[in-house]
Amino acid sequence: CPYRIAVIEGDGIGPEVTSATLLVLERAIDRYGLEIEITKVEAGDRALARYGSPIPEDSWRVIVNSDAILKGPVGESAGDVVVKIRRGLDLYANIRPAKVYPGVRALRNNVDLVIVRENTEDVYVRAESMIYEGVAVALRVISRYASERIARVAFDLALKRRKHVTIVHKANVLTLTDGLFKNTVYSIAKSYPDVSIDEMYIDAAVMDLVRRPERFDVIVTTNLYGDILSDLAAYVTGSIGLAPSANIGDRKALFEPIHGAAFDIAGKGIANPTAMIFSMAWMLKYLGEKNSDENMVRAGKAIEEATIYTLSEGKILTPDLGGNAKTEEFAKAICDRL
Amino acid sequence: CPYRIAVIEGDGIGPEVTSATLLVLERAIDRYGLEIEITKVEAGDRALARYGSPIPEDSWRVIVNSDAILKGPVGESAGDVVVKIRRGLDLYANIRPAKVYPGVRALRNNVDLVIVRENTEDVYVRAESMIYEGVAVALRVISRYASERIARVAFDLALKRRKHVTIVHKANVLTLTDGLFKNTVYSIAKSYPDVSIDEMYIDAAVMDLVRRPERFDVIVTTNLYGDILSDLAAYVTGSIGLAPSANIGDRKALFEPIHGAAFDIAGKGIANPTAMIFSMAWMLKYLGEKNSDENMVRAGKAIEEATIYTLSEGKILTPDLGGNAKTEEFAKAICDRL
Ligand SMILES: CC(C)[C@H](C(=O)O)[C@@H](O)C(=O)O
Ligand SMILES: CC(C)[C@H](C(=O)O)[C@@H](O)C(=O)O
Repeated sequence: CPYRIAVIEGDGIGPEVTSATLLVLERAIDRYGLEIEITKVEAGDRALARYGSPIPEDSWRVIVNSDAILKGPVGESAGDVVVKIRRGLDLYANIRPAKVYPGVRALRNNVDLVIVRENTEDVYVRAESMIYEGVAVALRVISRYASERIARVAFDLALKRRKHVTIVHKANVLTLTDGLFKNTVYSIAKSYPDVSIDEMYIDAAVMDLVRRPERFDVIVTTNLYGDILSDLAAYVTGSIGLAPSANIGDRKALFEPIHGAAFDIAGKGIANPTAMIFSMAWMLKYLGEKNSDENMVRAGKAIEEATIYTLSEGKILTPDLGGNAKTEEFAKAICDRL
Repeated sequence: CPYRIAVIEGDGIGPEVTSATLLVLERAIDRYGLEIEITKVEAGDRALARYGSPIPEDSWRVIVNSDAILKGPVGESAGDVVVKIRRGLDLYANIRPAKVYPGVRALRNNVDLVIVRENTEDVYVRAESMIYEGVAVALRVISRYASERIARVAFDLALKRRKHVTIVHKANVLTLTDGLFKNTVYSIAKSYPDVSIDEMYIDAAVMDLVRRPERFDVIVTTNLYGDILSDLAAYVTGSIGLAPSANIGDRKALFEPIHGAAFDIAGKGIANPTAMIFSMAWMLKYLGEKNSDENMVRAGKAIEEATIYTLSEGKILTPDLGGNAKTEEFAKAICDRL
């Protein structure tokens, strides 16, 4: 039986980068004989305008019944779409790699790090209340349970890399919540004697991401700090247009670019689809590894390689990388390498 | 009657940069005939170790009875010291300028912005609870009252500058709390028709602080985002060793460097005292303006100019700026120009 993929196009440049990504995916399906069933689902600003809900019930049903979700950037309603899916499907690990691809001009060249962001708690529980007129309160929730499982993801990843984990927190102010997070990560660290560990305050970490990014291998952090670190990390490695991400749970996963809907360049056909193409390739590898399906893994890797080749060749690039290719031309160049 | 200044040396490099700063202050007192009564108060890690409290009662009494506080960087107990003073004395406006001084090598040269950080609310209310074993909760509080007064500070400042205010928030997730902050700032904006206004999510703002910092004039934001933005802003303009800050209330104010205690270089006499010297100069100007005391304002400005001169001359610089001068030599060079 084929893999069921729910595809959310998103808003702004979403439809453009999604259609470029599906071009590459269809080419891979042909080339590798993949069995993938793609269902487009409406979600985001346009769904909200049309149906009064950013994720209409029909869409939710498809999402829940999918093996993986491929999501483009959503506009104003992004919080309602992506946070609902992350929490609703318990996709607790948000993995955000930042590294410099050959041929890409980056602010810093010595960056190869992964942000492992807890994806279900913190202020993202969205428990807010106007406790009385003019005074609003939000809960920031941190549990040992969620801190433990995200710590394991971080250490398992570190074992396959440079074997270093940095905890990012603000326990000098958030003594109990960030204290619980930090202490839990340290307690899990005991099961990983080969991984070294240190910690840093979020304000210092944001600065060091620019000042000396080479000091980071795996960063493990709570939800909001992870959000704040990841746009910057993507920028430091060249362009936010390149950075993919995975939201992984025990049963399914969602893959999406880190960048937003970029309404200012929407509709012009000049958006860089790389982040979403990398996200899609990651999805194939994830499904392949999970189902011991070598063919899927191979297809995912091939797409990655073809994309990196196209970037480093530097002939056909979108304007954000100094080229003048259209979104679709760039995607076609990748297809040609597949 | 003289101005009463409470001085907190702090930890790590704190005593070194404080003693350099007092050297310059004493020179200014002589040169300008200032009437200033300096009282050193114990607070921070060493106070905690010695008296069991990061701000012993005697220290608190001096702080409460002072006209202004000059504070060095504090170590592990920084949260307990500075947050207690900020909230206890209602120093609601944390003002953090970031600009490039002549002669200083910066990551970006086109930066001249001020972060206006709300200084009493957000997670800094420190209302945390372990609601049950393994689940901790922190309250994030935002009020219209505090948002209004910080908005006024931001707009008043913008009027004297490039007349632009950017609201930084995360209202796509924190709908009620950041929504209240954002809407309150917009409502105050109506009284400032000459100031233009826009808004940005915190994750995008952190990135744009590096990508295109020239787009910012005045940033107004809640407490934690302001914290996270300001180390990075200081780094982008050259060095975190240069950036002063003011914590201003309706009756008194605290002045401090943005940087931390830097235990790794403590005791070597090589720390850059510029941030604390600028903080002290700002304190003189603040006290002078508040009390219509031209002489104090003049002294403050002279210290600033002498410091900028010494930096831009580039002969006597601390190692962080590529020189090999000691903390004290740098301070003496400033004294010589006064
Ligand atoms: C759109 C927004 C809710 C989201 C987040 O804050 O998680 C985005 O910034 C991200 O990082 O995926
Ligand atoms: C030391 C810490 C409590 C403090 C803060 O978070 O406000 C510091 O980082 C700052 O920015 O002044």
